[in-house]
Amino acid sequence: MVIDLKIVLASGSPRRKFLLGQIVREIEVVSLDTDESFPLEMHQNDVALMLAKRKMDDAISRGIEGIIVTADTIVLLDGEILGKPADSFEAKSMLRRLSGKTHTVITGFSVLNTKNKKRIDSFSETKVTFTNLTEDEIAGYVATGSSLDKAGGYGVQDGYGSIFMERIDGCYYNVMGLPTNSVYEALKTVAS
Amino acid sequence: MVIDLKIVLASGSPRRKFLLGQIVREIEVVSLDTDESFPLEMHQNDVALMLAKRKMDDAISRGIEGIIVTADTIVLLDGEILGKPADSFEAKSMLRRLSGKTHTVITGFSVLNTKNKKRIDSFSETKVTFTNLTEDEIAGYVATGSSLDKAGGYGVQDGYGSIFMERIDGCYYNVMGLPTNSVYEALKTVAS
Repeated sequence: MVIDLKIVLASGSPRRKFLLGQIVREIEVVSLDTDESFPLEMHQNDVALMLAKRKMDDAISRGIEGIIVTADTIVLLDGEILGKPADSFEAKSMLRRLSGKTHTVITGFSVLNTKNKKRIDSFSETKVTFTNLTEDEIAGYVATGSSLDKAGGYGVQDGYGSIFMERIDGCYYNVMGLPTNSVYEALKTVAS
Repeated sequence: MVIDLKIVLASGSPRRKFLLGQIVREIEVVSLDTDESFPLEMHQNDVALMLAKRKMDDAISRGIEGIIVTADTIVLLDGEILGKPADSFEAKSMLRRLSGKTHTVITGFSVLNTKNKKRIDSFSETKVTFTNLTEDEIAGYVATGSSLDKAGGYGVQDGYGSIFMERIDGCYYNVMGLPTNSVYEALKTVAS
């Protein structure tokens, strides 16, 4: 624990809760069920930030009080957003596409202190380069079941995930779903 | 577990054991007590690889059999190698130096299959950029005791460590002590 704050996390992601739990005293998780659709003409790079802001606006209109954190993570490959795979078949197909290439992970986040109204909306972008994957490695990973709840079909913190990543350029934790350093700086700013 | 191998890890680092444990079936840890001194005229970038190779040569001369992994990690700042801090005072001083700057982490590793004599000596280099740290953050981290057994005085996998790192360029796991992807590729090569 780094800062002595209780934070309201408006996100159901267990990885975000874990990362935020490393830096704050206490977390209250609330579920928002925000509409995650976006206009087709919107630039893909702007989607994560727009959704994080929309989640925050939802949290405000629900009357949630305290220091609130919302976030949205997207995985971009060749100008296309990769969502969470619907099944093993789609998970394998995503991993085949990521194999041997560099993709981009963007997490938009919003931090608000409802007491002093200070709010920060920002995002973090990380490039992730995958090694060339064999069909066995793809099948082995998808068989662990770890693909299904993750955008892009992989988790960097898994055993398999760790051998898939040849290198990253940017914040590592951003790829897990929350750019810890940036969110920490934002929390310090809105709390003071 | 990704590859069905039993590996002899000649390293006392719990983080290396953890990372290797993510990708292989079984690990036998052996202790070598290799001399870690190096010639002063040696280029700092070459030290980690040289020590990993020396550890492997020690393992061979001790008659250890199987698929063996050795490694050595160094932290480089402004052309100087930062070792493990001797006490809290030195740990704080190291973190003050790392604050707001980019340093380099190099892990040299050696992988040998004693059956077919295939051997790979290689290394991985990662740039780590620290945020500007306050004295409170430095003192708070050092008080956790996490500094003392780590080269450079920090661990990327700690809660505090994660907020120190603004970005990394290269393999994340390399900063933890073992470049998982590269070692995995090397293990596949020597095992076949």
